[in-house]
Amino acid sequence: MKIGLDMMGGDFAPLEAVKGAAEFINATKNTVHLVLIGDEAQIKLHLQSYPIPDENYSIVHATQVIEMNEHPTKALKEKQQSSIAIGFQLLATGKADAFISAGNTGAMMVGALFSIKTIEGILRPTIGAYMPRENGTLGLLVDVGLNADCKPENLNQFAVLGSLFAKYILNFDHPKVGLVNLGEEEGKGNILAQAAYSLLKENNQINFIGNIEGRDILLDKADVLVCEGFTGNVVLKLAESIYDIVQRRNINDEHFDRFNFEQYGGVPVLGVSKPVIIGHGISHATAFKNMIRIAVRMIETDLLGKMKESFKARI
Amino acid sequence: MKIGLDMMGGDFAPLEAVKGAAEFINATKNTVHLVLIGDEAQIKLHLQSYPIPDENYSIVHATQVIEMNEHPTKALKEKQQSSIAIGFQLLATGKADAFISAGNTGAMMVGALFSIKTIEGILRPTIGAYMPRENGTLGLLVDVGLNADCKPENLNQFAVLGSLFAKYILNFDHPKVGLVNLGEEEGKGNILAQAAYSLLKENNQINFIGNIEGRDILLDKADVLVCEGFTGNVVLKLAESIYDIVQRRNINDEHFDRFNFEQYGGVPVLGVSKPVIIGHGISHATAFKNMIRIAVRMIETDLLGKMKESFKARI
Repeated sequence: MKIGLDMMGGDFAPLEAVKGAAEFINATKNTVHLVLIGDEAQIKLHLQSYPIPDENYSIVHATQVIEMNEHPTKALKEKQQSSIAIGFQLLATGKADAFISAGNTGAMMVGALFSIKTIEGILRPTIGAYMPRENGTLGLLVDVGLNADCKPENLNQFAVLGSLFAKYILNFDHPKVGLVNLGEEEGKGNILAQAAYSLLKENNQINFIGNIEGRDILLDKADVLVCEGFTGNVVLKLAESIYDIVQRRNINDEHFDRFNFEQYGGVPVLGVSKPVIIGHGISHATAFKNMIRIAVRMIETDLLGKMKESFKARI
Repeated sequence: MKIGLDMMGGDFAPLEAVKGAAEFINATKNTVHLVLIGDEAQIKLHLQSYPIPDENYSIVHATQVIEMNEHPTKALKEKQQSSIAIGFQLLATGKADAFISAGNTGAMMVGALFSIKTIEGILRPTIGAYMPRENGTLGLLVDVGLNADCKPENLNQFAVLGSLFAKYILNFDHPKVGLVNLGEEEGKGNILAQAAYSLLKENNQINFIGNIEGRDILLDKADVLVCEGFTGNVVLKLAESIYDIVQRRNINDEHFDRFNFEQYGGVPVLGVSKPVIIGHGISHATAFKNMIRIAVRMIETDLLGKMKESFKARI
């Protein structure tokens, strides 16, 4: 299998991307072939310090880079030779089976929507984030900002996509789905949450356990936590800030170390037709390694096939 | 000044209410007169252990109690002799200048709306919560659940009410108002946040500093954090859960101790025409003491007069 990796995306590219790629290959000794996309000279230079066996990689030279602050649509249109544009060309034409970047999030989303499209039946793709729980597992909060305004059916679809991700990637047998809400009882919430509750309750593709309050987000009450992207984004960034506070106060605690969201790299864009993973801008080697690992697992488990089947059944 | 205190509200009533009342009076030696509303025999019994000077209190006997799980409107209608119903009668007729309860939140809200009404011009009253910041101050997050669905003008009014509370009770000279949002730039957010931003920007009664992300909620970037009650409730309960996690992990830290929201007792219902404070169900003595202190300060600073003036100017 071939994993396309944008070597120019993120604040510490290409060095950390090379390190992460090398760590992944050398740790797993597997048959994954990495397609490293970016400035060939720079990549080769770093590969001297962090070597990867020849059979495990190839380089696709990209002469341009889309910077973090560029306008997504404009940049993608004008920079056809950028690592992100080339990555999506490789993905769309089957020369890569997945594409990973810690670069411009907007450009990654636009690229995903225009080059590989959404899964049939999906109204809106979504991005989630891991939520560390005290029992050592990770929950999935979805959406975390891609969809600030949602309709009830969007949340219902996020629940299905998130459940499949939780099942095949996070290894939950029957992932419990909770609706983030301001009270536990049915009937609580804003208009959106009330309407979404009815849809989730009727949805036999998921294991819906009801409403989840803010206090339950960091517990293992539910494995997939569904909400619109506005609340999800505020929750994610609040959780991220907890790690910063813990660091500033010199608190050493194994559990709070897991609030260092950088290490997770990123979760896939759920709902597009091929594996696409958008990483945190400040991704380091571990983050890149983890993103490659997730992409591999998505391919091995045929997660996209499962998602397509699931939505075919619903149409 | 006379402060009405529901002695039967909360999980540890009337003992903790008596203790809190005694602590307040004995700590401050002031001229406050507490009107203790509830079962006279029980109150007198606890006063033997936690005495209050005769001139600082009177008891108004209430034969009924509205339980935490009762339906608010029904309970208030049927239990006219309950401590909450009597408390609002005293407040409405001027026999108390403020009313405090850690009892049934819904009954407190219904009582407030029907017995003393909202300030003229206020569309919806609101309840906020304190947010502890690392510099030792408290910010105010408003709304935290009373208004799950909001219109832009609701948020604009919460900003004015919250600013006045922050100025007169939390002692910020020019409280900075931030709009909770998923990005910092103007134009970010869901439809509500985008529309609210325009109103807040034009509002010359507040010191609006722009959008505030989840990561800024626990910093001192803004003193008043405005959002609809859905997101606010999730944020508050998530912050509350951080304290629980810190406790379970045996972390001793002065700052995280301030995440014990119980100690704050409760913040006032903002937008109703007289001082009403609804406490946390699990309020202990410190919480009751703090609520009395806030009620006193609201009366001393004529916060309600300031609010009425402010909305008169806007009509």
